[in-house]
Amino acid sequence: MSGSNQLRQSVVLKRRPSGEPSPSDFEIKEDLIPEPAAGEVVTRTLFLSIDPYMRGRLREEQTYAVAIQIGEVMTGETVGEVTASADPRFAVGDIVVGPRGWQTHCVTPGDRLVKIDPAAKAPLSAYLGVLGMPGATAYAGVTEIVKPKAGETIVISAASGAVGSVAGQLAKRAGARVVGIAGGAEKCLWVQDNLGFDDCVDHRSMDLDRALHAACPNGIDGYFENVGGAVQAAVFDRLNRHARVAMCGMVSQYNEAVFPPGPNLGFVVGKSVLIQGFIVSDRPARLPEWRALAAPWIADGSLVYREDLHEGLEQAPAALTGILTGQNFGKLLVRVGHEAPR
Amino acid sequence: MSGSNQLRQSVVLKRRPSGEPSPSDFEIKEDLIPEPAAGEVVTRTLFLSIDPYMRGRLREEQTYAVAIQIGEVMTGETVGEVTASADPRFAVGDIVVGPRGWQTHCVTPGDRLVKIDPAAKAPLSAYLGVLGMPGATAYAGVTEIVKPKAGETIVISAASGAVGSVAGQLAKRAGARVVGIAGGAEKCLWVQDNLGFDDCVDHRSMDLDRALHAACPNGIDGYFENVGGAVQAAVFDRLNRHARVAMCGMVSQYNEAVFPPGPNLGFVVGKSVLIQGFIVSDRPARLPEWRALAAPWIADGSLVYREDLHEGLEQAPAALTGILTGQNFGKLLVRVGHEAPR
Repeated sequence: MSGSNQLRQSVVLKRRPSGEPSPSDFEIKEDLIPEPAAGEVVTRTLFLSIDPYMRGRLREEQTYAVAIQIGEVMTGETVGEVTASADPRFAVGDIVVGPRGWQTHCVTPGDRLVKIDPAAKAPLSAYLGVLGMPGATAYAGVTEIVKPKAGETIVISAASGAVGSVAGQLAKRAGARVVGIAGGAEKCLWVQDNLGFDDCVDHRSMDLDRALHAACPNGIDGYFENVGGAVQAAVFDRLNRHARVAMCGMVSQYNEAVFPPGPNLGFVVGKSVLIQGFIVSDRPARLPEWRALAAPWIADGSLVYREDLHEGLEQAPAALTGILTGQNFGKLLVRVGHEAPR
Repeated sequence: MSGSNQLRQSVVLKRRPSGEPSPSDFEIKEDLIPEPAAGEVVTRTLFLSIDPYMRGRLREEQTYAVAIQIGEVMTGETVGEVTASADPRFAVGDIVVGPRGWQTHCVTPGDRLVKIDPAAKAPLSAYLGVLGMPGATAYAGVTEIVKPKAGETIVISAASGAVGSVAGQLAKRAGARVVGIAGGAEKCLWVQDNLGFDDCVDHRSMDLDRALHAACPNGIDGYFENVGGAVQAAVFDRLNRHARVAMCGMVSQYNEAVFPPGPNLGFVVGKSVLIQGFIVSDRPARLPEWRALAAPWIADGSLVYREDLHEGLEQAPAALTGILTGQNFGKLLVRVGHEAPR
């Protein structure tokens, strides 16, 4: 049982950021670790996932979610260890993954948690990245929208990130020529050498259009969009007839107060292009399906992933700032607590 | 047999128009009506279809078709009467529809022609509009992309045109609330009173955004896009989550040398929107399927259509100029020759 006299820490929103969020837009609050009500579970957070979508939740106006209010705890996926349970499906010591928040301890309805099999061989952090929402997002976007075929050219932006790295490896498994776009030589090299993409273009290069043209001599048949902006424009210029575009994110503009104009959509008509926005939470069945499919690939090393781990809950705000400008290299995580020895 | 000493007239491209095409960009050439080679059919043109896509064929750079070259005959769908045949499937006097050109007489491979059943009750001109490519385009876009459901709000631009008028009536049959967008009070009234749309917004109104907002109080679930520009921007601003956009055309910009910027696509991500370009010629099976489905609706008067008929091949260039600025009212046709009495 968690003692009710123990303290927990939570990161709450202090003010809405204008432009790039700063650690000073957040503050840490302390309160007593609550006891679980019927059906609830208390967990001690081990890992917290930091994802670009979180910037959107800080905006006053929302498209599909409820905005985080001033004084509220930031939302986020976590892996945690059960410390108290009023849900018969969970026992103290169970490891669970679920949508909770930027807290050392969370109280969550058991219905929203998924237990991790103690026999599973993957590290717990993987359940927030390659085996979590980012991996399932890549899986849904590639299999439902991009639908790569052997010999096609598929482009993946933010290719070294949690979603892009999986999306590109799935397109490679389908037999496509896969071209990544990433920021900086180090990431591009890793995408080619470690993920096995056929090429990777540095979006900071002097002439992105020319570099993309050289990497995609036969045009582009599918695009997994994570960034928007100039990268989107360069890719759209080279789309082939019947190209498919999975619109997963446009992180380049998440800090903008007013979004800039976009592409004239004449090419969508002229080339019969498909542009499809999606969110994996609309497809809850895909996450367990993906975990079952990908777990053996993690075990045998054929699905490569990389994590960028920050230490301590207090680092979460700075980590969010960094992911919005591409400072992370791999799936961005914050270690909030240490695992008990298993 | 057509005598080889008879003359035919053809409209050929004289120079590439810059901006709005003018009749002076074309000229009429005369030559002898050819004899058909093996497998070919000679027809006397009765009706010629004028469609917005033709402007695109006048551009030097093409996305999916071959540009019409200077001195070449303009392409277009026609209905004609067979005057000579070297294809055993066609006999003199047969009425056929097919892609031929702006000519009084055409020589066409029989494979590209479809015979019209002499027992069919629809007027021959209908095979170029409501029962032709425009009707099949509406059918494909509505059934494959917009997929209206009962109670949803579906918006149709160029609502009084050959494609829009069918698209909206199909969405009505599916039980949706259908809102048209058209240019001017006369067209808007006809769309509501004769086509049975629930509402129709005049895109020339002082405040298009406000008018569209009033007509779509529950947002927009599906959009059949024919025009682009300010109409597109107003519609996109009101799309609901999971909205579907069938990108059929963007006639407002077909005369532009350089296309203006378009919408920022953040809403596609945030609202999981589908934007799909399409062309009915990629779906050849849909045209006969549509003709079989719609013919009884034409016969019983439940599918309403309107034709805007110009007299004489020499009127074709001016008709094309007019359709690009919305001067037509209904399916635009040119009568090139008169039907023999049946």
